[in-house]
Amino acid sequence: MTGVSRRRLLGTGALTAAAGAAMSALPASSARAAAAVSADVVIVGAGLAGLTAARDLVAAGRSVIVLEARERPGGRVYGLPLGDGTTSEGGAEFIGPTQDRIAALTKEMGVETFPTYNTGKNVYYRNGRRSLYATDGILGAVPPDWGVVDLQLALLSLGNMAKEVPVGEPWKAPKAEEWDSQTFHTWSRSHSLSNGARFLMDAFISSTLSVRSRDVSLLYVLNYVASAGNETSPGNVDRLINTRNGAQETRFAGGPEQVPIRLAARLGDRVRYNAPVRRIASTSAGAAVTADGITVTAKRVIVAMSPAVASKIDFTPALPASRLQLMQRYPMGSIAKFVGVYETPFWRAEGLTGQAIADSGVIDVTFDNSPPDGSRGILMGFINQSNIRRLDAAPPEEVKAAALDSFGRLFGDKARSPSLTAMQRWDNETWSGGGPVGVAAPGVLTDFGAALRAPCGLVHWAGTETSGHWTGYMDGAVRSGERVAKEVGTAL
Amino acid sequence: MTGVSRRRLLGTGALTAAAGAAMSALPASSARAAAAVSADVVIVGAGLAGLTAARDLVAAGRSVIVLEARERPGGRVYGLPLGDGTTSEGGAEFIGPTQDRIAALTKEMGVETFPTYNTGKNVYYRNGRRSLYATDGILGAVPPDWGVVDLQLALLSLGNMAKEVPVGEPWKAPKAEEWDSQTFHTWSRSHSLSNGARFLMDAFISSTLSVRSRDVSLLYVLNYVASAGNETSPGNVDRLINTRNGAQETRFAGGPEQVPIRLAARLGDRVRYNAPVRRIASTSAGAAVTADGITVTAKRVIVAMSPAVASKIDFTPALPASRLQLMQRYPMGSIAKFVGVYETPFWRAEGLTGQAIADSGVIDVTFDNSPPDGSRGILMGFINQSNIRRLDAAPPEEVKAAALDSFGRLFGDKARSPSLTAMQRWDNETWSGGGPVGVAAPGVLTDFGAALRAPCGLVHWAGTETSGHWTGYMDGAVRSGERVAKEVGTAL
Repeated sequence: MTGVSRRRLLGTGALTAAAGAAMSALPASSARAAAAVSADVVIVGAGLAGLTAARDLVAAGRSVIVLEARERPGGRVYGLPLGDGTTSEGGAEFIGPTQDRIAALTKEMGVETFPTYNTGKNVYYRNGRRSLYATDGILGAVPPDWGVVDLQLALLSLGNMAKEVPVGEPWKAPKAEEWDSQTFHTWSRSHSLSNGARFLMDAFISSTLSVRSRDVSLLYVLNYVASAGNETSPGNVDRLINTRNGAQETRFAGGPEQVPIRLAARLGDRVRYNAPVRRIASTSAGAAVTADGITVTAKRVIVAMSPAVASKIDFTPALPASRLQLMQRYPMGSIAKFVGVYETPFWRAEGLTGQAIADSGVIDVTFDNSPPDGSRGILMGFINQSNIRRLDAAPPEEVKAAALDSFGRLFGDKARSPSLTAMQRWDNETWSGGGPVGVAAPGVLTDFGAALRAPCGLVHWAGTETSGHWTGYMDGAVRSGERVAKEVGTAL
Repeated sequence: MTGVSRRRLLGTGALTAAAGAAMSALPASSARAAAAVSADVVIVGAGLAGLTAARDLVAAGRSVIVLEARERPGGRVYGLPLGDGTTSEGGAEFIGPTQDRIAALTKEMGVETFPTYNTGKNVYYRNGRRSLYATDGILGAVPPDWGVVDLQLALLSLGNMAKEVPVGEPWKAPKAEEWDSQTFHTWSRSHSLSNGARFLMDAFISSTLSVRSRDVSLLYVLNYVASAGNETSPGNVDRLINTRNGAQETRFAGGPEQVPIRLAARLGDRVRYNAPVRRIASTSAGAAVTADGITVTAKRVIVAMSPAVASKIDFTPALPASRLQLMQRYPMGSIAKFVGVYETPFWRAEGLTGQAIADSGVIDVTFDNSPPDGSRGILMGFINQSNIRRLDAAPPEEVKAAALDSFGRLFGDKARSPSLTAMQRWDNETWSGGGPVGVAAPGVLTDFGAALRAPCGLVHWAGTETSGHWTGYMDGAVRSGERVAKEVGTAL
């Protein structure tokens, strides 16, 4: 709370006199201990959603305080330290076509992007057999037999159903009741016959949501497909799963965390770290948001968190039942990312993209996480929901050994000996509670979905789970921040 | 914390010297403001589970403090004030055969029981037509046509599957993967053809769990059936749904809340009210449990709450992923109870039990809640998950009018004019988060079920959701308290 840090505040807006005065009045030494400030809007969570909302509200001349539980901004966007002063993508990683709002924010923050390495063949490891395939997306992974037809027909059906889902309001689909009464597992088994097609449909769910096919409603999956587009180009399965022309097409120079880091820096002391919010109390006079070390009074509150993590906050008055129960019903997937660092991206010389799909081993999907210039090689492997659960109590060395064994089977012995490794687990992370996104079992979207976004008194909701387009992605988070800023701007 | 209240402590045990000294050292005036006490065991939640655990630990010579968020004991066992100084059952209500542990505790507390009124015919209201039926249980409600056969075959199949489920460990059933990959809705639709049978299977789920058929895994339902018995008599569907010889057979004189109220009174000042627990921090030296107004240090912690409500507590170190994610995946049902008070139980004179099942109106199941001597009439109606959700934002008068309309259609015009009415909503109740019980969507029991009971460091878990027999019932809560007291006693 020094003059120096105050000068870093965004030029596009300023704290109101009241909030500024309240902040200035705090002696630097006690700011953490028991600060009490006021603002037009208090935002809970300094992920992309919260920061974007803050940016827009500040630009509109509103005073804003952002309370963040962690010591850093970004939420599920995180640069995983590799131990040598550099980082690799530990959370969200890619940007792709129709993700217009994260693209615009990335440009605004001056962060460069570059194509995900995608030259050569992908590895398909199944039933103990390693094969290579050239086609982008999961279709290419199926051995060229009747299973291809089987999968294609199922995905065609899925795509056609998704077209009937109103983006972000799946409960309004004509067949919502039917589609929300069954798991994706039930649907996929009754719409395919081959083990190959079924494995790849499970891999589709696992790699996009990090849950099992039985954990999600068919309607949720259809909405996720419908969501993978923008206002002019409807979502489709290919765009979700592909690298080229898909959601994995492009990476961020320096990591996507540069976007929230730079945005948070522009917001300056409006963002308070190490301030987990414990209580939100609303009265006719306004809202009081109590975090560790700081209480903020404001006219409106934006909770920019996943429903599952937001449920930890004590709300007064109690939230409506629809919202209270929604927060009990939107669990996070379970996911970890493991990276190995090598002198060179040796797989490229062998004609491989570094991308793989496997049915065994702790790592089931991989990508080439090397820096833009390929000056060293970084392999990234997802440890999916079932695998990370099995390793819940395992010591880190055991996880590392299992992960390197996976790398070795997929990319040869060289992959067994990285110079550095690192792992980011999200499933036991207090302030994310899992990743990449909250999911809905059957019945949840139809009976509780409207509560994802519906304001509760002075409390408004943001976060990628609330987004229509690209829910579950950075783009959805940014969209939700822009939407909620408009919503609150109108309400103020 | 006065000498007088100290004298009310249980005679079967005593606080240890350390805890006693710590408690005595507190001046009475500051006990609520910032008390700091220590005990062998701190128990979070003064419902039946927590109180039973406290009873057993005290009897074993351990010092115990019970922290309760509410101003009363009992949790989901609650006497709903009728406005004239009397109460009616606002939460848990019945006790039935094989519910041995709540029966023993009831006897120990000197609380009398009496048969649920069950003489005469039940009302069945469906497709706008009101009919009467004599058979106990939902089978009798079906018009005597092929639908009866349809339902009987489905329930027979359900019962046979349930026999293969190890009580309390459904994830060990040979077909657990298959049964936990589908909703009960999916199963019931593929194992019945008639609308009548399907309606009654949905009513079975709604009336026992207060969720819809699509909200729960088939495996969860099978476990619930298997759970409805004791060590010598396996659970079955009839025992769940019946009044005579079933879980609705018997009521408590003065209400079942007399049991936790008397037990809490015996525990005296060991039970602290208005003390919602915010944080549980464990170190090698022990655990510190921080509630509003009091911090307790202890060797072990028992969290005697549903998983959904326990998720609100901040745990340090973070819980294992399996537990953290379980708590995101065990939502509470949505339920309310509405009661109307009449000069006499007039329906008895008309040959009716007061029990009804309806497919329309806000009340879908009713019981005769009159006092044992029938000195006045009390009708109780369940407002199920879908109906209470529709009324989430409705003013109380609108709910009352709709409920009385239901009563009128089921029991005639006299039922429209009670002298008193009262309603207890559980779905927006902060410290229960819904009711009657936490449920599991597909995948949850198989992948996370073991975390229901597995201790996490110094933290042990109780609550009816953790019980093998009679999970979801008062008996399960008592069983869980007895189980966790043994578990902690061994660990101390």
